[in-house]
Amino acid sequence: MEQKEAVTVLGLGAMGTALARALLAAGHPVTVWNRTPARADALVADGARPAPDPASAVAASALTIVCLLDDDAVRAVLDGVDLAGATLVNLTSGTPEHARATAAWLSDRGAEVLAGTIMVPTPLVGPEEGLVLYSGPATVHDRHRTTLAALGRTDHLGDDPGRAALFDLGMLDVFFAGLASFLHAAAVVGRDGVPAAEFVRYAEEVVAILPATFRGLAEDVDAGTHPGEEDNLVMDATALGHIVATSRARGVDPALPELVHRLARRAIDRGHGADGFSRVVDEIRSPRPRDAAAAPADAGAR
Amino acid sequence: MEQKEAVTVLGLGAMGTALARALLAAGHPVTVWNRTPARADALVADGARPAPDPASAVAASALTIVCLLDDDAVRAVLDGVDLAGATLVNLTSGTPEHARATAAWLSDRGAEVLAGTIMVPTPLVGPEEGLVLYSGPATVHDRHRTTLAALGRTDHLGDDPGRAALFDLGMLDVFFAGLASFLHAAAVVGRDGVPAAEFVRYAEEVVAILPATFRGLAEDVDAGTHPGEEDNLVMDATALGHIVATSRARGVDPALPELVHRLARRAIDRGHGADGFSRVVDEIRSPRPRDAAAAPADAGAR
Repeated sequence: MEQKEAVTVLGLGAMGTALARALLAAGHPVTVWNRTPARADALVADGARPAPDPASAVAASALTIVCLLDDDAVRAVLDGVDLAGATLVNLTSGTPEHARATAAWLSDRGAEVLAGTIMVPTPLVGPEEGLVLYSGPATVHDRHRTTLAALGRTDHLGDDPGRAALFDLGMLDVFFAGLASFLHAAAVVGRDGVPAAEFVRYAEEVVAILPATFRGLAEDVDAGTHPGEEDNLVMDATALGHIVATSRARGVDPALPELVHRLARRAIDRGHGADGFSRVVDEIRSPRPRDAAAAPADAGAR
Repeated sequence: MEQKEAVTVLGLGAMGTALARALLAAGHPVTVWNRTPARADALVADGARPAPDPASAVAASALTIVCLLDDDAVRAVLDGVDLAGATLVNLTSGTPEHARATAAWLSDRGAEVLAGTIMVPTPLVGPEEGLVLYSGPATVHDRHRTTLAALGRTDHLGDDPGRAALFDLGMLDVFFAGLASFLHAAAVVGRDGVPAAEFVRYAEEVVAILPATFRGLAEDVDAGTHPGEEDNLVMDATALGHIVATSRARGVDPALPELVHRLARRAIDRGHGADGFSRVVDEIRSPRPRDAAAAPADAGAR
């Protein structure tokens, strides 16, 4: 039987534990470290080797996977540790800026660095249903591809270590807006006595047309042309105005549809009323002065 | 061959024309009226009968379909017309409040009224791909079901004439938020040189998990319990903060993720940080005082 690569996992929160477990399941020798050592107990019972400190953990394997609370924790844990010759895969969540800065910080200390984001919840981590986006040197990704496959399908997005976080956050942007809009619609119809469970199949009919709609929007965005065909922004704004009014009439927070309505109105006010909805991308790219003024680089990242 | 029911169509915009065309295609005698008569020419060439005014149009058929710009136009067109014994299907877009008020106004003048919303773009109107939601008396829907099937599948949502508009706007709420969030994510990744066409397949992976996610949210909303399992609001707010920061760092309007972030933070501040995202519905149901104060019933409906 082929000897599997030794791997260290730093950080045993829910996700770090799932990663270590998937590596053990794939037959890798696994060394683990966590600030609170007791979190390693179950893994050690299943064959993981506990390291007494981050330095010995990193020294134990050629490949170290880092999954800590945030990038500040990564620096706190690895400060002073000799990383010369080590390969680190940083799966800690953050912004593209965090991922780039941490990759640079780790590289300065002699490590080769891959930055990644895990795209599935912990129960799905593993070779069948897992998915991890990676960015950073392709050579590092390719060298450890077989090991990383134990965590899930790998998707390498290019050399920029910020790219995986960028795609992850873009996906979460769509995800959370979808969730918030469903809750908003559920709140509105709920005021008229409609259970969310009755409305949900109608929301699913909307979801069914989103992929083709997104592809159409993407074409327009990349082409920089926004033809209004069946629909145009004036008609869209009318519908959005009805959603806002219907929310207000029921005492439901109108802020979400109001925001989308405002974007459409701004595009119309600039003379784009006959364009399609994709024209709104120009408004999103050009925040109102108020937004731009309140823009410290890391504001809101709590 | 069975004699098909005679139908009148009032209003020949793009949608009214598509409705009249679908009825002609199904073999119905069709009478049409439009304020600008020339819009009827192509339909008349295909066998529709033009009426000189709304009164004679309504008198020509037992069933009249109304598809005008808005409910004000419905009243302007039908004011003074004898509607005793007529059946009107109002497919004019508006809010539930509009649909209810117009149904009452038409009933007061002697008509039986069904209110509906067309869920497909004009090219899909017809028996195969069409879908129309109806609300109002079930007896009226059932009596004309065979005729209405020429426009698309029918879905009767109950006696309240506002219900079809309510569901329609709930669906559009989810639809437009989805579109806006995709454009937002496209703007963000675009700043780092990623074409929207490259990002779109990642957005589609998000769409793929929305139906199950919506069903989970609906269960929580109806149960009034919001268990945080794999994820909780504190983790969600951290991710949303990263999206906001990543938008700001790229000069992209952060308003959309910021709004969702704020809703999550409000729920956390009320002590629900360990709950799941569905808890946000409570915040949406309880607008901040600022929103509630600025709430004339029809504000924003332009």
